[in-house]
Amino acid sequence: MTETVNVKNIGLRGVTVADTKVSFIDGSKGVLAYRGYLIEDLARNATFPEVAFLLLHGGLPNGEQLDDFERQLQEAGELPAYLYESLTHYPVDAGPMDVLQAGVPLLAMADPELRDDTREANVRKAVRLVARIPMLVAAWHRIRQGLEPLPVDTSLSHAANFLWQLQGAKPSAEMAHILDTCLVLHADHTFNASTFSCRQVVSTRAHIYAGVTAGLGALSGSLHGGANALVMKMLLSLSEEEDIDAWVKEQLEQGERIMGMGHAVYKTMDPRAKFLKEMARDLGKATSQEKLVELSIQIEQAALAEFEKRGKTEIKPNVDFYSASVYHLMGIPTDLMTPIFAISRIAGWVAHIIEEKTGEAQVKPALYRPKAEYVGQYCGLMGCSFEPIEKRE
Amino acid sequence: MTETVNVKNIGLRGVTVADTKVSFIDGSKGVLAYRGYLIEDLARNATFPEVAFLLLHGGLPNGEQLDDFERQLQEAGELPAYLYESLTHYPVDAGPMDVLQAGVPLLAMADPELRDDTREANVRKAVRLVARIPMLVAAWHRIRQGLEPLPVDTSLSHAANFLWQLQGAKPSAEMAHILDTCLVLHADHTFNASTFSCRQVVSTRAHIYAGVTAGLGALSGSLHGGANALVMKMLLSLSEEEDIDAWVKEQLEQGERIMGMGHAVYKTMDPRAKFLKEMARDLGKATSQEKLVELSIQIEQAALAEFEKRGKTEIKPNVDFYSASVYHLMGIPTDLMTPIFAISRIAGWVAHIIEEKTGEAQVKPALYRPKAEYVGQYCGLMGCSFEPIEKRE
Repeated sequence: MTETVNVKNIGLRGVTVADTKVSFIDGSKGVLAYRGYLIEDLARNATFPEVAFLLLHGGLPNGEQLDDFERQLQEAGELPAYLYESLTHYPVDAGPMDVLQAGVPLLAMADPELRDDTREANVRKAVRLVARIPMLVAAWHRIRQGLEPLPVDTSLSHAANFLWQLQGAKPSAEMAHILDTCLVLHADHTFNASTFSCRQVVSTRAHIYAGVTAGLGALSGSLHGGANALVMKMLLSLSEEEDIDAWVKEQLEQGERIMGMGHAVYKTMDPRAKFLKEMARDLGKATSQEKLVELSIQIEQAALAEFEKRGKTEIKPNVDFYSASVYHLMGIPTDLMTPIFAISRIAGWVAHIIEEKTGEAQVKPALYRPKAEYVGQYCGLMGCSFEPIEKRE
Repeated sequence: MTETVNVKNIGLRGVTVADTKVSFIDGSKGVLAYRGYLIEDLARNATFPEVAFLLLHGGLPNGEQLDDFERQLQEAGELPAYLYESLTHYPVDAGPMDVLQAGVPLLAMADPELRDDTREANVRKAVRLVARIPMLVAAWHRIRQGLEPLPVDTSLSHAANFLWQLQGAKPSAEMAHILDTCLVLHADHTFNASTFSCRQVVSTRAHIYAGVTAGLGALSGSLHGGANALVMKMLLSLSEEEDIDAWVKEQLEQGERIMGMGHAVYKTMDPRAKFLKEMARDLGKATSQEKLVELSIQIEQAALAEFEKRGKTEIKPNVDFYSASVYHLMGIPTDLMTPIFAISRIAGWVAHIIEEKTGEAQVKPALYRPKAEYVGQYCGLMGCSFEPIEKRE
C-alpha cells in the first residue's frame, strides 16, 4: 500500500482498524455483546469467571469446564513473595493505579512461561492475570493501612474473595453478587482506549504483561476508567441543600461536563448503565443510604432535561455514572474504583491481546505504526541551518 | 463525523492520524529531522542533552540554556530510596525492560507535581524522566550483580555518567562520545510504535509516567526496540567458519528474516545506520575486535545481494543492525541494548506526550478510540441464545 489515508486529529473515531471476534457494540441501538452473547443475558445469568472463560475461549463453559477454570483461578492465587516485599517500600499515598502499573511487570518476572508465545501458554498467563490483579489491589490496600495482606479463601467466589481480601470480612451473598455483576458488565467493550493500548503494545510482539501494563495506563486517564472516581468526587462535593437543577444548568452554562454523562460510542442509553442504576437503587435500600442514589437520579434527570433543551438528546448516563454509587455503597474507597474497573476489564484485555498475537480474527496481524503529518519548522528542503552553540542567541 | 473509514488490518500503515511538530521522516529519501534539524547535523555537532532540549523546547539551546538544562538533569539525579529498596527484592534474572516498566510508576509516586498537568510541570517531569531512566538501568544492573548502585558523578556528561554508573569505571572520552552520538541518533522517530503508545495512553489524560510505561512496553517487542538484542544474538550465534553468503541465502529461502534489515518507513538506507556503521568500524579498531564488525559487514553485503536478486532493493540495514555491534564493543550486555534504546528515546517520548497533552500541533487533541469490525459469532439479530449452564454440552 503506497497511498496514504488521512484521518488526522479525530482520535481515530469512526476509523475501523482491525477485525475482532471478541465483542460487538451497536452504539445507536445500545447493544453490547461478548462473543455474541448480549450483555443483558450475561449480567442476569452468568458469573464473572463464566464470562472470563467466554471471552478467553470464545464459548460459554459447561459445568465441568467452569469448575476447572475456577480452580485454575484459585491456584494462580498467591502473589510471589518479592512482590509483597516490594509493595511494603512504596509511599503509602501512592496512587493505586500506579501501584498496579508497577505490580504487573513484577508478575511478569515470576512467570515461568513468560517467553512462550503460543496461544496455550498465553491463555495460562491470562488466567494468572485475571486471578492476580484483584489480589494486587487488595494487597496494596492492606499494606497502605499498615495491615498484612490476607490469604485467598478458596471457599469463596472470585468476587467474594476479593471483598474478603480487601476488607477483611466475608461479604454478604448480596454484596458478592452485586460486585460479580459489576465485573461482568465491565469485562469488555471492543476497541476502547485501554484495550487498543494493549493490542498496540503487543503488536510489537511484546509479552502479555507489557500489554496489560499499557492498558492500565490508559485506563487510569480521566477520559476513560478514571471517570468513575470523578463521578464519586462530584457526588460527594454536592451538599444536601444544593439545588441540583440549578447546579447542573450552571455547570453546562460554564462549559463544564457532567461526569458520567455521554459516551464516545453510545448514542442512546448505555445498556450497562440500566443494570447499575437498578443495583444502586437496591444497594441504597439495603444500606439505608437512599440519599446518595436519589442525588444521582436527580442529577441524571436534570442533565437529561438540560441536554434536551440543547438538542443533545444523545447524551445519557454511561457505565461510570451509577457504578460510582454502587462501589461507594459497597464501602469501596474512591481511589479504588478505577482499579476495580481493571479487575474486570483484565478479562477483555487478555482476550484481545491473544487475538492480536494469534491473528485469530485478522487476515494478518500487523504492528500498529501510523503516520503523522509534520507541521513544524523545516526551513527549506535541506533542513534548518545548524548554528554552532556559541553563535546562538 | 458519522461516516466510517476502513483501514482494516494494515496496522495503520500509511494512515495519517495526527499532526506533529516534533520530527519529520521522508522514508523514500532517507531523511530524518528533529524539529527541522537534519539528523546528520545533530549527530555530528550536537550532544544528547542539546537534542533533548531541542525536542522538548522546539529550538536549540544557547550556551546558558544548555548549562541550565544539564544542571537540571544532574539535579534530578538520585532515585528515591524506596525505589532502590524495591529493586533489591526483584528476581536477579528479571528482564531489564520489565524492571524499567516496573520502575517508572515508582518514579511517578515520588513526583510532587504528578497531578499538575500544565505544560511547565510536564516539562519538569520530562527532564526528571530523561535523567532517571539511565539511573534506573544502571542501578538494576548493579543490584542484579549483588553490587551497590553508584552515585551520580556531576563532573561527567550525561552519557559518560551512565557508563560510570553502569560499569563502575570512568569511560574514555571516545567511548562517552560514541554513546552520546548513539543517544542522539535514537532520540526520536515520529509516530513509531512506542511513541504512538505513549501518545495514545496520555490521550485519556493519564499522566506522563503512565504514557512512558506504555512506551517501554511497546519498545520491548522484537519488532521494535527488542530488535537490537536479536541482531546481537544472531551475530554471536555465527561461528568464524560459517559461510556467511550461504547462511544468508538459506535463511531467506527458509522464509526467515535477517535481523536488523528492512524498516517500516525507510525504503533506502536508514540515515542513522550510516553513522552507526562508521562508529562500529572505529570501535572495532579501537578495541581490536574488528572481526565482529567484519562479520556484520559480510552479512549486510550478502543480504543486499540476495535482496537484489529477489527484487527487494528497498531492504537495507536499519538502526538496529550496527547499533548492536557498537553497544557490544562498548561492553554493554545484550539484554541492556533495548534499555539503552529507551535511555535515548525517552527524550522523544516526553516531547510527543507533551505535544499530545497540550494540543500544540493538532487542531484539537482527541482520545484515540478506533473501531473494529466484528467478525465473530452473533447468531442473528438478537444475539446468541443463552443456555443455562446445566444444559450446555
